[in-house]
Amino acid sequence: MMDTTRLEAFSDGVFAIAITLLVIAIELPAPGGDLPRELVRLWPSYLAYAISFFVIGAIWINHHGMFQHVIRTDNGFLVLNLLQLMAIAFIPFPTAVLARAISSGSNERIAIVFYGATLLAVGIFVNLMWWYAARRRRLLDKNLSGQDIRRISRLLLVGPAAYAVAILAGLVLPWAALASFIAINIFFLWPRRISGAPPRLES
Amino acid sequence: MMDTTRLEAFSDGVFAIAITLLVIAIELPAPGGDLPRELVRLWPSYLAYAISFFVIGAIWINHHGMFQHVIRTDNGFLVLNLLQLMAIAFIPFPTAVLARAISSGSNERIAIVFYGATLLAVGIFVNLMWWYAARRRRLLDKNLSGQDIRRISRLLLVGPAAYAVAILAGLVLPWAALASFIAINIFFLWPRRISGAPPRLES
Amino acid sequence: MMDTTRLEAFSDGVFAIAITLLVIAIELPAPGGDLPRELVRLWPSYLAYAISFFVIGAIWINHHGMFQHVIRTDNGFLVLNLLQLMAIAFIPFPTAVLARAISSGSNERIAIVFYGATLLAVGIFVNLMWWYAARRRRLLDKNLSGQDIRRISRLLLVGPAAYAVAILAGLVLPWAALASFIAINIFFLWPRRISGAPPRLES
Amino acid sequence: MMDTTRLEAFSDGVFAIAITLLVIAIELPAPGGDLPRELVRLWPSYLAYAISFFVIGAIWINHHGMFQHVIRTDNGFLVLNLLQLMAIAFIPFPTAVLARAISSGSNERIAIVFYGATLLAVGIFVNLMWWYAARRRRLLDKNLSGQDIRRISRLLLVGPAAYAVAILAGLVLPWAALASFIAINIFFLWPRRISGAPPRLES
Repeated sequence: MMDTTRLEAFSDGVFAIAITLLVIAIELPAPGGDLPRELVRLWPSYLAYAISFFVIGAIWINHHGMFQHVIRTDNGFLVLNLLQLMAIAFIPFPTAVLARAISSGSNERIAIVFYGATLLAVGIFVNLMWWYAARRRRLLDKNLSGQDIRRISRLLLVGPAAYAVAILAGLVLPWAALASFIAINIFFLWPRRISGAPPRLES
Repeated sequence: MMDTTRLEAFSDGVFAIAITLLVIAIELPAPGGDLPRELVRLWPSYLAYAISFFVIGAIWINHHGMFQHVIRTDNGFLVLNLLQLMAIAFIPFPTAVLARAISSGSNERIAIVFYGATLLAVGIFVNLMWWYAARRRRLLDKNLSGQDIRRISRLLLVGPAAYAVAILAGLVLPWAALASFIAINIFFLWPRRISGAPPRLES
Repeated sequence: MMDTTRLEAFSDGVFAIAITLLVIAIELPAPGGDLPRELVRLWPSYLAYAISFFVIGAIWINHHGMFQHVIRTDNGFLVLNLLQLMAIAFIPFPTAVLARAISSGSNERIAIVFYGATLLAVGIFVNLMWWYAARRRRLLDKNLSGQDIRRISRLLLVGPAAYAVAILAGLVLPWAALASFIAINIFFLWPRRISGAPPRLES
Repeated sequence: MMDTTRLEAFSDGVFAIAITLLVIAIELPAPGGDLPRELVRLWPSYLAYAISFFVIGAIWINHHGMFQHVIRTDNGFLVLNLLQLMAIAFIPFPTAVLARAISSGSNERIAIVFYGATLLAVGIFVNLMWWYAARRRRLLDKNLSGQDIRRISRLLLVGPAAYAVAILAGLVLPWAALASFIAINIFFLWPRRISGAPPRLES
């Protein structure tokens, strides 16, 4: 079995590249024009850049959180991780679509729903990875109690559930949906609920 | 001699970057148009993205599988590995060609053959690496039996042989060839046949 | 708590990718034209490439310098580091804006101020990270004296203060501002003042 | 002092990214046209891709070769390494210029000279790094004999000297120059002359 170090290093590489590629989706202003106005006009691109940077960062932190408990891998887990990375590496595309939609003042609704659907896909794969690892605890650290496994399982379900609700809300209130995407990631970012939860076990 | 850790780390970097660069080949929909229709119209790009993501992921997993047994490197092996990486890092190009051909509804046949030829090249370099490493076992772990070496040699030959057949089929039935490329990678992905095979030796 | 190794590795990935992506902002000369003249005409792109390469390199070296003393992380620190990386990964954009402004001979002033503002943002996040880590020394190596902490705090403040002054100067003398950005980074590059300072403590 | 592990890891990241970015310089054929002809017409892009892939690979191998002997770093060495990486990360640009010049059948001479000048810059920085590290042996492994240091110094000088001659030749015989660039890299690739040379010392 491949040890998790290598899987994490490869995943980290994909995270780092996807997060740094976000910048190339920002269109350069036309040369010779009114540059201050052009740079201000690009605010939707900056906003989309910042949101996606934070989203990928939050997913990265939680990915590591999960690997505090997952100490073995097998082929099924590798494939599920690959599917998660496939959704994460896709994020620059809906980010650029979102920036353009806000910028052109049309199709914001569908762009926000499309963006949220990508995050929903990430969330679903995160849950599939956890369920797969936790089934009969085959890939988990033995020191993790059944109670903690159930707690983390419930916590991880918050992600896709909240994204699904936010996407539905986005059909009516697109900006509320976008705010929800940010809120969901702050929820998972602070405090680090997945790996940080069981300190009482370690002491 | 360079130890294999560094070679694997460099190769992993190339794998991670090539897999994450796939997304930038997806053309952005024109702003202000009918976005839902545009996003649906891009399905060939999503399909090509998903296939290449899986293909590169499968090659990555098998690359590591080989390095379970290869424990030394020399210059010849470094050069062969570089040639393999050259073919892998090229994959985003035939992927984009394939997506555009399917999207425009013309030249699918040649695009699929071109895509398959790139995978065939990867497969050939994988075999050259293995033959080079296995000749007089100079770069292999001594615990690997001659029987296992022959079994892995036969197994790795399946790749280029199957790609060659699929490419020929693609001249007549392009979609069957594309389905074969996916099937070949699933074959090598699950179960991990190269490194996972000799458990009876380790016990 | 996540140990700092992983945080540094992820940050290094972002640094390495951002610095290597700078090249794709250089526009290719039109084919078939007067190539020598075209290649010379691109000097603003080469200049912007070289400056940003050095700037990101200098930030990278200082990032590691800080991690000589920071030996623990928590969620707040992770988020601040993510904000710093967000500003660093953004650098290719103002770099391209700067190259185009100089190239077209218009808007140099605003492009230089915009570029400096990005570096100012990096500098502010560097300071926030340090203050956060140094508050009640919670994330610092215990061997670092209070005197050294204050010395590093003062030193790090030089960055944003100098950038702020240079940006203001840039409103009048754009080229002096650009020269200042380079000078600030040389100041932080040579000698490595942050990690290199406390050798008398280590001996 | 920063230990060399981190410097090598960062450098490896830049190498891996620069080598993988080469593919995005290949222009996609126009959709709907005569795809087989278009794919053949792109041969200069494939050639330039293959040459630069090999060149960067050869530089990478030699970079590691040097770090078999360099066991410490200081600020001056970091800066020289950064300058070398600046030249390496620039390679995708002259590669694309070269591909376009060959493709358009004009300006091959200047494109080949420009390409060679970039490799010459890399070679000069390699030599500066070595001289800096070897001066009073301050950054070198103590087991390296003075004779070996001189041998490696002479060997490394072959690079820029050969590039300079090839560039001059390129003003008259552009294709001979291109062939020379390949030959120079094969010379440094096989056998690995820098790290591989002193086996008699290690035994």
